[in-house]
Amino acid sequence: MTANPAQPNDLVLLLSPDGKRFLVRLTPGQQHHTHHGYLAHDALIGQPFGSAVKTQLGHPYLLLQPSTFDLVMRVKRASQIVYPKEIGYLLLRMNIGPGARVIEAGTGSGALTFALARFVRPDGRVYSYEERGDMFELARKNLARVDALDVVELKQRDIRAGFDERAVDALFLDVREPWLFLAQARAALKGGGFFGALVPTTNQVSDLLAEMERLGGWADVEVVEILTRYYKAVAERLRPEDRMVAHTGYLAFARAVVRETKEESPAWQAEGAADANE
Amino acid sequence: MTANPAQPNDLVLLLSPDGKRFLVRLTPGQQHHTHHGYLAHDALIGQPFGSAVKTQLGHPYLLLQPSTFDLVMRVKRASQIVYPKEIGYLLLRMNIGPGARVIEAGTGSGALTFALARFVRPDGRVYSYEERGDMFELARKNLARVDALDVVELKQRDIRAGFDERAVDALFLDVREPWLFLAQARAALKGGGFFGALVPTTNQVSDLLAEMERLGGWADVEVVEILTRYYKAVAERLRPEDRMVAHTGYLAFARAVVRETKEESPAWQAEGAADANE
Amino acid sequence: MTANPAQPNDLVLLLSPDGKRFLVRLTPGQQHHTHHGYLAHDALIGQPFGSAVKTQLGHPYLLLQPSTFDLVMRVKRASQIVYPKEIGYLLLRMNIGPGARVIEAGTGSGALTFALARFVRPDGRVYSYEERGDMFELARKNLARVDALDVVELKQRDIRAGFDERAVDALFLDVREPWLFLAQARAALKGGGFFGALVPTTNQVSDLLAEMERLGGWADVEVVEILTRYYKAVAERLRPEDRMVAHTGYLAFARAVVRETKEESPAWQAEGAADANE
Amino acid sequence: MTANPAQPNDLVLLLSPDGKRFLVRLTPGQQHHTHHGYLAHDALIGQPFGSAVKTQLGHPYLLLQPSTFDLVMRVKRASQIVYPKEIGYLLLRMNIGPGARVIEAGTGSGALTFALARFVRPDGRVYSYEERGDMFELARKNLARVDALDVVELKQRDIRAGFDERAVDALFLDVREPWLFLAQARAALKGGGFFGALVPTTNQVSDLLAEMERLGGWADVEVVEILTRYYKAVAERLRPEDRMVAHTGYLAFARAVVRETKEESPAWQAEGAADANE
Repeated sequence: MTANPAQPNDLVLLLSPDGKRFLVRLTPGQQHHTHHGYLAHDALIGQPFGSAVKTQLGHPYLLLQPSTFDLVMRVKRASQIVYPKEIGYLLLRMNIGPGARVIEAGTGSGALTFALARFVRPDGRVYSYEERGDMFELARKNLARVDALDVVELKQRDIRAGFDERAVDALFLDVREPWLFLAQARAALKGGGFFGALVPTTNQVSDLLAEMERLGGWADVEVVEILTRYYKAVAERLRPEDRMVAHTGYLAFARAVVRETKEESPAWQAEGAADANE
Repeated sequence: MTANPAQPNDLVLLLSPDGKRFLVRLTPGQQHHTHHGYLAHDALIGQPFGSAVKTQLGHPYLLLQPSTFDLVMRVKRASQIVYPKEIGYLLLRMNIGPGARVIEAGTGSGALTFALARFVRPDGRVYSYEERGDMFELARKNLARVDALDVVELKQRDIRAGFDERAVDALFLDVREPWLFLAQARAALKGGGFFGALVPTTNQVSDLLAEMERLGGWADVEVVEILTRYYKAVAERLRPEDRMVAHTGYLAFARAVVRETKEESPAWQAEGAADANE
Repeated sequence: MTANPAQPNDLVLLLSPDGKRFLVRLTPGQQHHTHHGYLAHDALIGQPFGSAVKTQLGHPYLLLQPSTFDLVMRVKRASQIVYPKEIGYLLLRMNIGPGARVIEAGTGSGALTFALARFVRPDGRVYSYEERGDMFELARKNLARVDALDVVELKQRDIRAGFDERAVDALFLDVREPWLFLAQARAALKGGGFFGALVPTTNQVSDLLAEMERLGGWADVEVVEILTRYYKAVAERLRPEDRMVAHTGYLAFARAVVRETKEESPAWQAEGAADANE
Repeated sequence: MTANPAQPNDLVLLLSPDGKRFLVRLTPGQQHHTHHGYLAHDALIGQPFGSAVKTQLGHPYLLLQPSTFDLVMRVKRASQIVYPKEIGYLLLRMNIGPGARVIEAGTGSGALTFALARFVRPDGRVYSYEERGDMFELARKNLARVDALDVVELKQRDIRAGFDERAVDALFLDVREPWLFLAQARAALKGGGFFGALVPTTNQVSDLLAEMERLGGWADVEVVEILTRYYKAVAERLRPEDRMVAHTGYLAFARAVVRETKEESPAWQAEGAADANE
């Protein structure tokens, strides 16, 4: 946890009077410029979190510790990121928590990588694979900025050749054709390990399910989408926001089965809507 | 992480051929009875996770390590629980992770308590308050069953008198009238700390927002509902399940502001739908 | 409109104290039996609609004229019906109203057929095709019961051979493989006529879109799903129902283009989310 | 139905290659200007609907008859309109169709007024009340443009004084405080008549329900919201649009009960989720 009050080198969140959010690394001598004037970092350092700080024009900004949600959303993006609504769900569904060893591919902008790193601390480890050099460099910068590189191993690699790790607890694929890497995923996962993938189209969901069915070795397959609906937070005129995100992607999950020959294995299904789908 | 293969005293998940889930504590000499016959615990002990085990009638069950999702959903309930879809979201939004100190009230059946304990390990702490004696005892049993009591402090207490802790990172209220305890919550939270609440009705959301507005001292207020829509995982006939959970509750979040006089403080709003609501 | 008060032979709706609905044809001498006792039809005849009528045990039932919604939902079903939420939308999207000539296939249980008949009155016409003899007979009975046969022509026919009508205003397919009948639909529709289809799976949507693309001759293609979320109607505890229908089907719409050669035609798209999707 | 081919004075829809829609009254001698060049009305007159017409720069536009959906969405707006998704649903739920006599207040921009007029033809009647002079004039112009005034009676009136009509089949309130006009609505409706209202906030829903409860005389109360989720209509990459309309308003419905004293009347509820909510 970030210490209180704000220290030099802290990554802080500044909340403007009109709800804008700015992620800032406190650096003595620097200034943060806004459309309401500027804030001197030196005037922020030493202030308690949760207090109002004023620009030279007198506009109050709120000095806050950023949440995991804020840090994920404020990653510098060169690609679609995995959003907090999906990350929160997959943490519970894939049993990712302190101590877990997790593989992820591709790294992309590193938004999910950061979140995984946050939750496997202090003893877990995130192995993140990315083929493209430009994305790899962006992710490295993004992860350095949020101090996540100590529990993350970034690997610039085409995952067709497989993963280096064995018996990992969980493996998540955020790639265009996840069905091409099921055997590699199976080889890296421990028995009963948690597989997850995120794809934007229904065709990809079908392709993934078809290949899982063809290969065998997967059980408890689940496909789900997560929707968040925000409200205007006004007591006497409570109502949803006019618009919402309708789609980011479909999440697919499965468990790795061991010692199975396809002939003898039943299709262990995911739990029905009756009690699990909540 | 649970060791591999299955050991005596492990809490394991048995997945039936038709997708039923059973949470079982492996105990030498015991049997688990199903509608497909029984499984001897002794025959499960020593088996690798992810492998099929057969009942005496030959029906294969899958031996799995339970996920946080499974453990939350299988808590013995005497009340509505906080569901995994909400838990996942609030972890990221309230910055709960390894090392966090978190207050929760009421404990209820202990489903959220367990999840919080899971994610604040190893150095964090969960302080959970429950007034009702019967719920308190149920939660204690539930949390003992999932080995969570080492990071949880259960307190049987009416929270009108306030919380014992100070400067906690986050505080979550799952009570009928959360607006009655805002001052107590404010006193327990660190500056900028994360407040959250879950309420089932729109009237309660309005009451909570009105009281936050009246008292002042809260910023970045957000109200959101989380919906999960499950699909039939069939490659060539992909479609959503026929029915879904339409509502569990509304989540409300806010940050605790320090040294504020109501007159001078702007209403720091939550970020608009444009980029955060995803 | 049904005359007031209730007359012999009226089709009426009886609403029980606990919200149950019964559709009854008033017939002198008959009785309607409920779990609260019985109502003599003779005691209902002559009562004004909207009034309470009591069973011999003293339980009040409300005597009502059924709505289109009620009649659609209470059709005797031997198959999945098209639901009111989809019917309402397609009426506006396919420009179906008084005077329209509309083709539908298959008839199924006749729920959509009835609704179409209701809205094209008095001068329009519904041509409904059904191949299966058992469904054809059921639909005929259902439509007779709601007095809709005067504007409906039922045809027991395999639609691979095409439709008899030409230059119809709108054509709706509720069949398993609607893509097989696009040429037949195109031949029956007037220039610019409205095509619609309902399919339950994403694979069927893809197949339909692919065939439309391949054949050409279709513009303004739209795919949409309609969700209804009901609330517990309690003023001081307002909240959504716990569960909802998550899926009935995907609606697809298009307009028939004339004199087009595929080479020269652009893909006139449906209007984007910006202003039409409301 | 509009005759084929296009005639002078027809209201036509022009669909651009990139999915833009233009509603145009064909007038000899006039031109329609687009960002792809212009179309001479004289060149459109005499063309069959569903055919491509080219701008002087060679860009093809599709000549179409507008649907009810198009006409509702293209009303000139000075206020929030009732959207097609809600209109379609309320037609079925409130039993509005050919021959119905319907009251509406306020008229607003006349979008719902037009749709009601469209569906009650030829023998029904729409009585539409609007207090504000500017809205009244706008609605009159909008309704004249779509040739709806023959079945609509517009009244510039404060509805606190009540409605002129008696025994109407249905009455719909799209006003800020519908609960203030329940007695007036009850006086205008026939026994068992259909009441509907649209309000944007949960507080308004609660206020309406509370007043219905207090006054008595209403049964089968239902509250519902309608969501439409559009898909990118691409066969091999099928997925929902990125964003959707999250909220327009809550629909509330009820039936008018006759001869009831509040003491003796049960609260006839709306049908539960089990079979009606689809």
